[in-house]
Amino acid sequence: MVRVSIIGATGYTGVELVRLLTRHPQVEVAALTSQSYAGRRLGEVYPHLAAALGETVLTDDVEAAVAGAGYVFLAMPHGQAAEPAALALAAGKRVIDLSADFRLPGETYAAWYAQAAPAPALLDQAVYGLAELYGPEVAGARLVANPGCYPTSALLALAPAVRASLVDIGSIIIDAKSGVSGSGRQPALGSLFCEADEGLHPYGVATHRHTPEIEAQLSRLAGTPVVVSFTPHLVPMTRGILSTIYAGLRGGVGEEEVSRVYMEFYQDKPFVRVLPPGTWPHTKWVYGSNYCLLGLTVDRRTNRLVLAAAIDNLVKGASGQAVQNFNLMAGFPEAAGLEGLGIFP
Amino acid sequence: MVRVSIIGATGYTGVELVRLLTRHPQVEVAALTSQSYAGRRLGEVYPHLAAALGETVLTDDVEAAVAGAGYVFLAMPHGQAAEPAALALAAGKRVIDLSADFRLPGETYAAWYAQAAPAPALLDQAVYGLAELYGPEVAGARLVANPGCYPTSALLALAPAVRASLVDIGSIIIDAKSGVSGSGRQPALGSLFCEADEGLHPYGVATHRHTPEIEAQLSRLAGTPVVVSFTPHLVPMTRGILSTIYAGLRGGVGEEEVSRVYMEFYQDKPFVRVLPPGTWPHTKWVYGSNYCLLGLTVDRRTNRLVLAAAIDNLVKGASGQAVQNFNLMAGFPEAAGLEGLGIFP
Amino acid sequence: MVRVSIIGATGYTGVELVRLLTRHPQVEVAALTSQSYAGRRLGEVYPHLAAALGETVLTDDVEAAVAGAGYVFLAMPHGQAAEPAALALAAGKRVIDLSADFRLPGETYAAWYAQAAPAPALLDQAVYGLAELYGPEVAGARLVANPGCYPTSALLALAPAVRASLVDIGSIIIDAKSGVSGSGRQPALGSLFCEADEGLHPYGVATHRHTPEIEAQLSRLAGTPVVVSFTPHLVPMTRGILSTIYAGLRGGVGEEEVSRVYMEFYQDKPFVRVLPPGTWPHTKWVYGSNYCLLGLTVDRRTNRLVLAAAIDNLVKGASGQAVQNFNLMAGFPEAAGLEGLGIFP
Amino acid sequence: MVRVSIIGATGYTGVELVRLLTRHPQVEVAALTSQSYAGRRLGEVYPHLAAALGETVLTDDVEAAVAGAGYVFLAMPHGQAAEPAALALAAGKRVIDLSADFRLPGETYAAWYAQAAPAPALLDQAVYGLAELYGPEVAGARLVANPGCYPTSALLALAPAVRASLVDIGSIIIDAKSGVSGSGRQPALGSLFCEADEGLHPYGVATHRHTPEIEAQLSRLAGTPVVVSFTPHLVPMTRGILSTIYAGLRGGVGEEEVSRVYMEFYQDKPFVRVLPPGTWPHTKWVYGSNYCLLGLTVDRRTNRLVLAAAIDNLVKGASGQAVQNFNLMAGFPEAAGLEGLGIFP
Repeated sequence: MVRVSIIGATGYTGVELVRLLTRHPQVEVAALTSQSYAGRRLGEVYPHLAAALGETVLTDDVEAAVAGAGYVFLAMPHGQAAEPAALALAAGKRVIDLSADFRLPGETYAAWYAQAAPAPALLDQAVYGLAELYGPEVAGARLVANPGCYPTSALLALAPAVRASLVDIGSIIIDAKSGVSGSGRQPALGSLFCEADEGLHPYGVATHRHTPEIEAQLSRLAGTPVVVSFTPHLVPMTRGILSTIYAGLRGGVGEEEVSRVYMEFYQDKPFVRVLPPGTWPHTKWVYGSNYCLLGLTVDRRTNRLVLAAAIDNLVKGASGQAVQNFNLMAGFPEAAGLEGLGIFP
Repeated sequence: MVRVSIIGATGYTGVELVRLLTRHPQVEVAALTSQSYAGRRLGEVYPHLAAALGETVLTDDVEAAVAGAGYVFLAMPHGQAAEPAALALAAGKRVIDLSADFRLPGETYAAWYAQAAPAPALLDQAVYGLAELYGPEVAGARLVANPGCYPTSALLALAPAVRASLVDIGSIIIDAKSGVSGSGRQPALGSLFCEADEGLHPYGVATHRHTPEIEAQLSRLAGTPVVVSFTPHLVPMTRGILSTIYAGLRGGVGEEEVSRVYMEFYQDKPFVRVLPPGTWPHTKWVYGSNYCLLGLTVDRRTNRLVLAAAIDNLVKGASGQAVQNFNLMAGFPEAAGLEGLGIFP
Repeated sequence: MVRVSIIGATGYTGVELVRLLTRHPQVEVAALTSQSYAGRRLGEVYPHLAAALGETVLTDDVEAAVAGAGYVFLAMPHGQAAEPAALALAAGKRVIDLSADFRLPGETYAAWYAQAAPAPALLDQAVYGLAELYGPEVAGARLVANPGCYPTSALLALAPAVRASLVDIGSIIIDAKSGVSGSGRQPALGSLFCEADEGLHPYGVATHRHTPEIEAQLSRLAGTPVVVSFTPHLVPMTRGILSTIYAGLRGGVGEEEVSRVYMEFYQDKPFVRVLPPGTWPHTKWVYGSNYCLLGLTVDRRTNRLVLAAAIDNLVKGASGQAVQNFNLMAGFPEAAGLEGLGIFP
Repeated sequence: MVRVSIIGATGYTGVELVRLLTRHPQVEVAALTSQSYAGRRLGEVYPHLAAALGETVLTDDVEAAVAGAGYVFLAMPHGQAAEPAALALAAGKRVIDLSADFRLPGETYAAWYAQAAPAPALLDQAVYGLAELYGPEVAGARLVANPGCYPTSALLALAPAVRASLVDIGSIIIDAKSGVSGSGRQPALGSLFCEADEGLHPYGVATHRHTPEIEAQLSRLAGTPVVVSFTPHLVPMTRGILSTIYAGLRGGVGEEEVSRVYMEFYQDKPFVRVLPPGTWPHTKWVYGSNYCLLGLTVDRRTNRLVLAAAIDNLVKGASGQAVQNFNLMAGFPEAAGLEGLGIFP
């Protein structure tokens, strides 16, 4: 058994980590920290977890939580990971951070987040935790930067095409749609039921902070700088991200070739499924699960590749991917604790 | 490993059985039947199951499906269970039926369902599968009538009070609210998104078929005939039932006594949790799980007991409860395959 | 043209007043006040109103707003109406208050709201504005206490039966279900999309503040003190209240008599429609409109009357009813500005 | 008063026409036809309309319905408009058809709808009823082809840019999201609440029938053939379409210029509102109303114009636009009967 602690256990990604880790056969939860609910039992704050760790008392003693564990998950808002990360690494612990704080080069972070990168000294050791692309690096990492929810969906959809140079690198447009849980649990006007229900809208057009994260990884895959259009939308559902992606095809590339490249790219990856051409993913098919479903077609009329990727933003887009990375780091089977299928309907 | 077959595997309760049974450590699925999708792969019809039994080809050969299994789940519409049940029992198999066909005495069935009971000869051997009340009987049964979704919530809420004679038996009012999945997967006007979304309404007032099922079991618990008011409502959500229940208290009964009776009644039951007075269950806390959460209060102003029970209608109200009964029948731990916690948010 | 001002114009009931009043043929809006958005244009804060009063600049000058109008609508949180009401009345204006501050006798308010009634000196002149019951009083009032959303639905459903002594006055149970907009626009955890979506739950069981309001009016109708059970529930929809109501019938009362009493009671009331027995109201049928739909049945098995009332909580349950009262006060046709039909689907 | 009939009055667009026309000051409804509900009263089938035309008996006598009216609205499924259109035109009536039957050249229709155009002989007289572009033509038309819901949103967003040659005509990508009411009222698996709730998915990628309609009109505006990528998505809401659109900018075009072009293009159009750069439309802001809201930005990093258009698919995308066209034809104010503001929240 490996002992883990979660720093920031009562946000949405925190409780999703709890849900997944309590099903993990080789994990023991050492401590759960919470600023808002310290001193209260988990089952009282989140009755859906009562049957597992319901009696666990939440703590605000981050140091003790780190000390008692071999692996530390950081599930805190952006900008707050530096201190606990440094603390844990100094104590020889291995860290999976779910925030954006270690995903970007310092200058890029500063440019898009309007503040200095929180812990530039640690950036060197941070490995970008998209397991399907960088599994071996993740396995050896001491500090994993767990990818953002939108980048996870966009990168899994685009990676095979970009690496195989199937598409015109300057033509990529990512139109993404997310459920409301991506906004977190802080009461905010735009997250109210009455504001978000029965309607949808774009936000952060051409300015969203996941843009440079996507571009950095695509540039790495392409071996050349990539700039993309990225538009997120808020959709009236709790979970789920769908990214619909458009890219101009390099001359002569056909659907059969694209399909083959994708099937091969993901043939050994347990959590990515390439659907047959003409089948398009529903986000509900991955509700509560760690899977990513990919649909694709080649539109001959426009000579564009159209891709769609569906994930559960709280699982593959956050906590499930964190557990997947943890499994790689700890030498466990990649899918341990992540076998749950989508809840449908 | 025990081999099981599901007759009617592609309705909502059927696929929920598949989801749960594929996580069961001691179960092997022998066959899945479907009238609508025979010949197609399960993963094609239901991509959320692709990672588990996705390659399984659906069959319409009920006889072979029964022959290959030791236990048979019947997940078909009401009125169609007689034939496969008789077939399975004659072949020495044990049967869990999710329809209403074996839940009521013949005359009661005929009176409320406007047709003769499908298999009167088998009614004698049918055990009503509310595991919390009739566990030992279920363990020895060859044919289990899995309870209806509404009755499950109402009976778990009322059983302690009725058995302990805390309430006036003639005063019981059950106001129940259900998600739309209770209506099944048949395309019908009232189940359309645009008809059910953003509104709610009562239906089947004073005439719903789950009324006699509730009354029969309450009468058994009370040892005297019980008549109740039961009103179901359709609520704009996919899963979940909440039953809010009102009953006049026998003289002098107070909240402390009621609370104690409930805690004791369910102290050994893994799937029923009595919440502390003043905490009221949300159906979302049991989304996707087999738990039933109970809230209660004694209203001194009106001298009434108010109860609320929350379940996931497709899990504890159908397929999860069926697996729970199967576990008792097969001698497995009661919670095997049912450890999944609620998905929240 | 009559000039009106809205004090508190940017909460949900405030903007619904704006929507309705801009369609009123004899109303001119004098001023809209807002604490949060003073100085901004209405159309910027609420783009759905841009085409009507979009250029109106919100003000926080309550005195000027009152001075410029003949009628003043108060659409503020409970406990804040006293001052503007006193101001307006002293200036000879007529007031329609949408809060609870003038609905209850002082002691009752204090007992249920845990604070002293805000303006005891004004309570004498306050008329309870349920137009269908107290139309003539409303017409002559200087200060109208606009009813609560839950009480509106419960009282319209119960009034004919209680006044005609059809039911046992001690047996009334009101199980009510509301959309989330009843919680207002203040960001609060329980009003978040992810907390309220895809689930429902009771709240305020046996303690909700609308209980004494319902009881006070039923007592007035019955001529004797009435105590009821009232349980509100939060349902995943934006608008709508459905109250399902149970009451024991006095000996020998049948469905025909009940139906006749209801039809007669509401025959001249433009906004209440009694549905034929067996038809049950959907809240979506009144979405955005000022109508109240009533369904009823007599359950012979239990000798109970079952009633269901559907309203849009923001229209008939708040702002629409306020306009209806205003029409009576100003001598306009009762339905002026309220002709909009429900939006379906 | 002008007499109008609706052929196919009980589908979703049919009842929305009824809702709007009953508020029209100069319209009298002559007859409402329905195949499914002939002989029943409208108020029985659709209680939300009970207060207006509730007593109107639905008929299946199309000939009489046409004969009794001066204007005829056809609100039937695609492929069924030919006969009633021919009938009405022969009798000297003026026709507004809400189906696709008169929107496309015959060969294009045949190529995309997999059947011959229903009434090639009438195509000549058909005017494409996008009032903001072709108002004068509509005013003189005898047969108006009311635009599709997706094309309405896409064309209103793109028309100013295309006509002013601001964008590279080969680079247009339209990513559209629709509520479920676009699928109509026929019970179908994909329209079930449990299938559509809490998830979203693309459909008809690169093959949707609204593609040629969009292309035909853009080609007309550009004066040269235009081919676009168009991807529709089904979103868990009843009403609303949001089209997010990407196009490469011609050299040197900046946000100020684009914004000015859009403001000027729509300055006299009552139903299109161009939002200030940085404000993005929510579909809920137009819920139930005939407005189209446009948001736009110039993304300097990618040199693309990003547009977003929000409409209510049943109003501006269907029945409201039909009434707008009718107003132009009959010489009424363009907004008569369409003054209703969006219902928010």
